[in-house]
Amino acid sequence: MFESSPSTGTEDPVFAMHRGGKISVRPTVDVTDRHGLAMAYTPGVARVCTAIAEAPALAAEYTWVSNTVAVISDGTAVLGLGDIGPAAAMPVMEGKSLLFKRFADIDAVPICLACTGTDEIVATVAALAPSFGGINLEDISAPRCFEIEDRLRALLDIPVFHDDQHGTAIVTLAALRNAAQVAGKEFGQLRAVVAGAGASGVAVTKMLLAAGIGDIATADSKGLIYPGRDGLNPVKAALAAQTNKSGLTGSTESALRGADVFIGLSSGTVAESAIASMASNAIVFALSNPDPEVYPDVAGRHALVVATGRSDFPNQINNSLAFPGVFRAALDTRASDITDGMKLAAADAIAALVGADATPGYVIPAQFDPRVAAAVAAAVATQARAEGLARR
Amino acid sequence: MFESSPSTGTEDPVFAMHRGGKISVRPTVDVTDRHGLAMAYTPGVARVCTAIAEAPALAAEYTWVSNTVAVISDGTAVLGLGDIGPAAAMPVMEGKSLLFKRFADIDAVPICLACTGTDEIVATVAALAPSFGGINLEDISAPRCFEIEDRLRALLDIPVFHDDQHGTAIVTLAALRNAAQVAGKEFGQLRAVVAGAGASGVAVTKMLLAAGIGDIATADSKGLIYPGRDGLNPVKAALAAQTNKSGLTGSTESALRGADVFIGLSSGTVAESAIASMASNAIVFALSNPDPEVYPDVAGRHALVVATGRSDFPNQINNSLAFPGVFRAALDTRASDITDGMKLAAADAIAALVGADATPGYVIPAQFDPRVAAAVAAAVATQARAEGLARR
Repeated sequence: MFESSPSTGTEDPVFAMHRGGKISVRPTVDVTDRHGLAMAYTPGVARVCTAIAEAPALAAEYTWVSNTVAVISDGTAVLGLGDIGPAAAMPVMEGKSLLFKRFADIDAVPICLACTGTDEIVATVAALAPSFGGINLEDISAPRCFEIEDRLRALLDIPVFHDDQHGTAIVTLAALRNAAQVAGKEFGQLRAVVAGAGASGVAVTKMLLAAGIGDIATADSKGLIYPGRDGLNPVKAALAAQTNKSGLTGSTESALRGADVFIGLSSGTVAESAIASMASNAIVFALSNPDPEVYPDVAGRHALVVATGRSDFPNQINNSLAFPGVFRAALDTRASDITDGMKLAAADAIAALVGADATPGYVIPAQFDPRVAAAVAAAVATQARAEGLARR
Repeated sequence: MFESSPSTGTEDPVFAMHRGGKISVRPTVDVTDRHGLAMAYTPGVARVCTAIAEAPALAAEYTWVSNTVAVISDGTAVLGLGDIGPAAAMPVMEGKSLLFKRFADIDAVPICLACTGTDEIVATVAALAPSFGGINLEDISAPRCFEIEDRLRALLDIPVFHDDQHGTAIVTLAALRNAAQVAGKEFGQLRAVVAGAGASGVAVTKMLLAAGIGDIATADSKGLIYPGRDGLNPVKAALAAQTNKSGLTGSTESALRGADVFIGLSSGTVAESAIASMASNAIVFALSNPDPEVYPDVAGRHALVVATGRSDFPNQINNSLAFPGVFRAALDTRASDITDGMKLAAADAIAALVGADATPGYVIPAQFDPRVAAAVAAAVATQARAEGLARR
């Protein structure tokens, strides 16, 4: 990487783009003289503070809090890089903040934490909560991410959303709805195999169950998960009880025989022979980044629909289709939570933008489809209101 | 305050200015297509993360951290309003963030905490530290503010600066240097009385001692502080040991007889007769906001130089002359701390901008004097280098 450093005089364009960071803070009011200062700061600001102290709901009107999201990571599970620590995680959190603004006009603040203990992270995020309208947890390793999110959702009255879980799950479900239609398969009859039981594998499994998929089996690095298997943490044990109707054991590849759907969230690989053993009109979502479990040129020999997480192949399944609109809705409605119903509504809204136009190479909207964030926001807001969670 | 709410249709201009908050987050790079996304976010960003993981100093080059300051409050001592809580404190922290950008091009993020315990605040700020280049503590009540700052300075390798203490002390010292010159008094011979032993009263007292003032006595709400007095917390007890050479007891007003300087940081009042009892060519800094301890028209009958914290009278002593340049220097030099030497250098730089032009009505530069932040930054950076604290 040092070839890219400025001292060589030949800076790589990616590094050049990141130089100095990718976001900044800008005033939205002009303060150029004493009069402006006396309005924006002392003594004028004291009246605004007093008004909020007397009527706390006014904070949403007279501060930026109601349009902000904290993008919080401890740097333990960054992209496919693993535990690289908070300083090295910052470029990702800044990038995410940039996307919040670009896609949903949300003011997001990247925060990388020096602590990794569950209790410390929960306490820190809870302490910060009055400063933000929502909390986007990011790149926190499993299984801690599950407990951290659960506890924060219970503690706080603002939405807490671990995007590695739910963003992935929403977009995967959206793509799978359209893929099933293209393949002429009933969603409720699909048999799916998920490789990977980290944050995204667990969340995708739960979401597909909630959406009514026929059967789903999930595997971790030790193979398929089933009740009583060795090495199940509480999250996986709970998953075992809800999944794998047919009681499959053994490897992901063995489970693919006759399966309709493969979803890879494992950072591993899958052999071509296993893909070839799937049912006709198979659906393969090889979502590991940067290297999919199986490349589209190989999977495409056997499967009807192939998707990856990459922008250089068709059918890119990427969280940025979901999180901007989901948080836009949560902030606009001042919802206290982002529920399963709201996540399902987001997935359905994304899927519907493709709808009858779906083909094997087009089961999910493009990243820069300008309709996406607004459609997601509208559907999620409607659902938040229907569930009585909207506070305006 | 409800007359100002939008429902009446006659919004007060101060409230209108604060509507929606006073800052926003903006991307500094343009991401409009897949190619840009692949550079600013996955997969390109992974290379930047990896580079930082291998060489942590690169975080300063390729993230926004090196230009950021967190403005952190627990909402316990907001302006003169007291303990109004984190939500109501946010307009002040946003205003401060706005001023950081306006005066020093620093990206400041307002953070209001839901906790008030010393241990909790220290743990929370320490957890956030990798995300910021410096920490500006704000409006945290005494005496907790002293221990919180001390512990964070010891824990963290980025600057931690409680502005209510040091910003006020820097600007007060700057004004007092020029006021002494105007009054024809030697700084080292001045006898001063400080009313108020909260964050700013304690810090002003310490800074004037460090600058070599002749004698200084400080009073809290129970009267002058002297060794062995009842009701001294450890901070005040330490102050008692260093101040009040003449062993004065009793009230602030009694101590003013024959004094050269009065500095009010008390939210109290001082009688005209006490001001009249001061030495000839007396200096009165009545800095409580919004109501000074004595108004300039009254104090001016007896004192030569009168300053307040207000923009509608001459000689406004306001922290915004100090903190932007101090943090600009700390960030530019990547200093690990802001030392007493750096604070004294800031005060001298501010004082020197007035220098020989000083008159009774002009002992401190105006808020919008465009020279101030750059002059402070240059002087503080030079001092940081001289002390070996600069890391570039």
